[in-house]
Amino acid sequence: MKSRRKFLQHISAGVIPIAFGFTPESLLFNPDNSQNDKTLRVALMGLGSYANRVADAMKDSKRAKVVGVISGTPSKIPEWQKRFDIPDKNCYNYENFDAIKDNKDIDAVYIITPNAQHHNQCLRVAAAGKHVICEKPMAINAKEGREMVEACEKAGVKLLIGYRMHFEANTLEIVKMRNAGEFGDIKFFQGLSGFKIGDPNQWRLDPKLAGGGALMDIGIYAVNGTRYMVGEEPIWVTAQETKTDASKFREGVDETITFQLGFESGVVASCLSTYNMNNLDKFFLNGSKGFAEMQPSTGYGPIRSATHKGRLDMPHTTHQTTQMDEMAKIIFDNKVPIIPVDGKEGLKDIIILDAIYEAVRTGSKVDLNLT
Amino acid sequence: MKSRRKFLQHISAGVIPIAFGFTPESLLFNPDNSQNDKTLRVALMGLGSYANRVADAMKDSKRAKVVGVISGTPSKIPEWQKRFDIPDKNCYNYENFDAIKDNKDIDAVYIITPNAQHHNQCLRVAAAGKHVICEKPMAINAKEGREMVEACEKAGVKLLIGYRMHFEANTLEIVKMRNAGEFGDIKFFQGLSGFKIGDPNQWRLDPKLAGGGALMDIGIYAVNGTRYMVGEEPIWVTAQETKTDASKFREGVDETITFQLGFESGVVASCLSTYNMNNLDKFFLNGSKGFAEMQPSTGYGPIRSATHKGRLDMPHTTHQTTQMDEMAKIIFDNKVPIIPVDGKEGLKDIIILDAIYEAVRTGSKVDLNLT
Repeated sequence: MKSRRKFLQHISAGVIPIAFGFTPESLLFNPDNSQNDKTLRVALMGLGSYANRVADAMKDSKRAKVVGVISGTPSKIPEWQKRFDIPDKNCYNYENFDAIKDNKDIDAVYIITPNAQHHNQCLRVAAAGKHVICEKPMAINAKEGREMVEACEKAGVKLLIGYRMHFEANTLEIVKMRNAGEFGDIKFFQGLSGFKIGDPNQWRLDPKLAGGGALMDIGIYAVNGTRYMVGEEPIWVTAQETKTDASKFREGVDETITFQLGFESGVVASCLSTYNMNNLDKFFLNGSKGFAEMQPSTGYGPIRSATHKGRLDMPHTTHQTTQMDEMAKIIFDNKVPIIPVDGKEGLKDIIILDAIYEAVRTGSKVDLNLT
Repeated sequence: MKSRRKFLQHISAGVIPIAFGFTPESLLFNPDNSQNDKTLRVALMGLGSYANRVADAMKDSKRAKVVGVISGTPSKIPEWQKRFDIPDKNCYNYENFDAIKDNKDIDAVYIITPNAQHHNQCLRVAAAGKHVICEKPMAINAKEGREMVEACEKAGVKLLIGYRMHFEANTLEIVKMRNAGEFGDIKFFQGLSGFKIGDPNQWRLDPKLAGGGALMDIGIYAVNGTRYMVGEEPIWVTAQETKTDASKFREGVDETITFQLGFESGVVASCLSTYNMNNLDKFFLNGSKGFAEMQPSTGYGPIRSATHKGRLDMPHTTHQTTQMDEMAKIIFDNKVPIIPVDGKEGLKDIIILDAIYEAVRTGSKVDLNLT
């Protein structure tokens, strides 16, 4: 068992050991991969709608459990205590949660708050010695992202970003096929990520809380997807912004951005990020020998996918359930995920977001250095 | 009949008179639309592979007939004479074809030669008083295109561009649905047009003959498709070039260009033009109420299409057969096509191609004025 564990720790991220006869499924779902069954005891910070979704998904989790809550709206807490059998001592507000340091019943805090709050909250959780799981985007700029990575390294805690797609079966199967050369040389990726946003008063449309607009919230799926689908880091980006409703999408809140990413190998990616249209959750990866299509590609599922060989449509499991089980293994068993989900991975996306905004501002190509 | 004819002449191009109960099919295929059955007698200029395809398709044409040939390789001519029963007097070479002026048995010349030759050949055909059908791209820059339009106007002959998709049933059905508001407000268009080009010695890869690279030859489908799918003229363009093989794709021959078009209404289009990948013949039109997808979208067919309502997959007819029947009606009956195919329409695409090349060269957004 020890040698297998060592092997799993040492395979390079993103490279599937096909020669050993493993599949992504076996890596992910085979109980043999777990070195123990230690449960990750999680406090959720921020009790909005996505926190509800994560908490519900964790009910089916084998390795993770909601044991605490941290909320800026303490009136929400009693209902959560009832739903998840949470004792008073595991309930915090935004003023007093540094005291979580002394709470031996909590291993990690999952930050699910508005984007602009992630940085400070992450630093405080790290200082309290707890592992951090942080929703994407990890931060509203790369400077903040870097400080988060450094703070968690310094504190000796893990920092993971809530990239649920990195554990999704269709995604992993396509990455596996790409690594096996089934698409030949990758040539082109297209990611279209968007939805028509509703309530104009939500935090996502407040530049102070969101740190941006559609790109921060939904366009990041196309940014992140470009990287894991292409399997190479981009070296430049260009971008164009279009705004049709300046009252809903204020200064600092982008409505629609088209952006393009270039790669050393000659791959090009062409992406769309928008808060102003539906029917936009499409990935297309094209190579010299074949292609893959996903639609929906990053929604809560089921993900639908096909390649030049036919439909994939891998079995659906609730993304957040799988994510939390896998994150428990990453934290406790040092499992190496096929697609990284650590802070450095999240930071690469933020560096690209910064560059896209700069490209919009300057109208010029912006070079990237992610390696 | 006269009032109907007048009506057909006066409806605005691109606007389908749904209020009158006509469908694109009835406009195109109903024999009532033809005022007579006069046959368009065509001489083909340039006897390469696409001329063969057009000539074969015209065998099934009701209104157009190959009656002559003009070739720079006279050794090809005898075989064509046999296939199409062409008398010696209707055969020309590139030196003597001005004499077509005195040939009463030829109505029009269809120019199917390398791009850079279109301009001069068009001017000579117009001067000979014959109608011109010219393959796309009509010219290698807008200056040449403008001169072609002016020359044909001055000579009193029609100039039509070989846009076979403008008569294709799926395309017209989607345009009809758009005009009827079935997609709501149009928001986004994506056109991916490309193929992996073979023989490095062909004229398409010779900048002197091609006047450019993939953009001129195949990217123009995405440019042209953007305009007829969106139903509005773009006001700016940005573009990025990628080259992976500088020996095959020499200076002045583009391999891969991503380009983006912006519109007054806020529509954005994101397109790809390439000679370096297959599986690239996809259109996607997205609106506030629905969408349309075509794949293949501009190949020789059958075109496959779907909307938010389900699959369309209109019956396939050979594109060039329909095109030539319709062009005969445009020339002899003054029929107004739903999507224009005249020289001014072709010129708009060339103006955009010029702007894309300028955007690549300068790295900056280029404004367009097409209206």
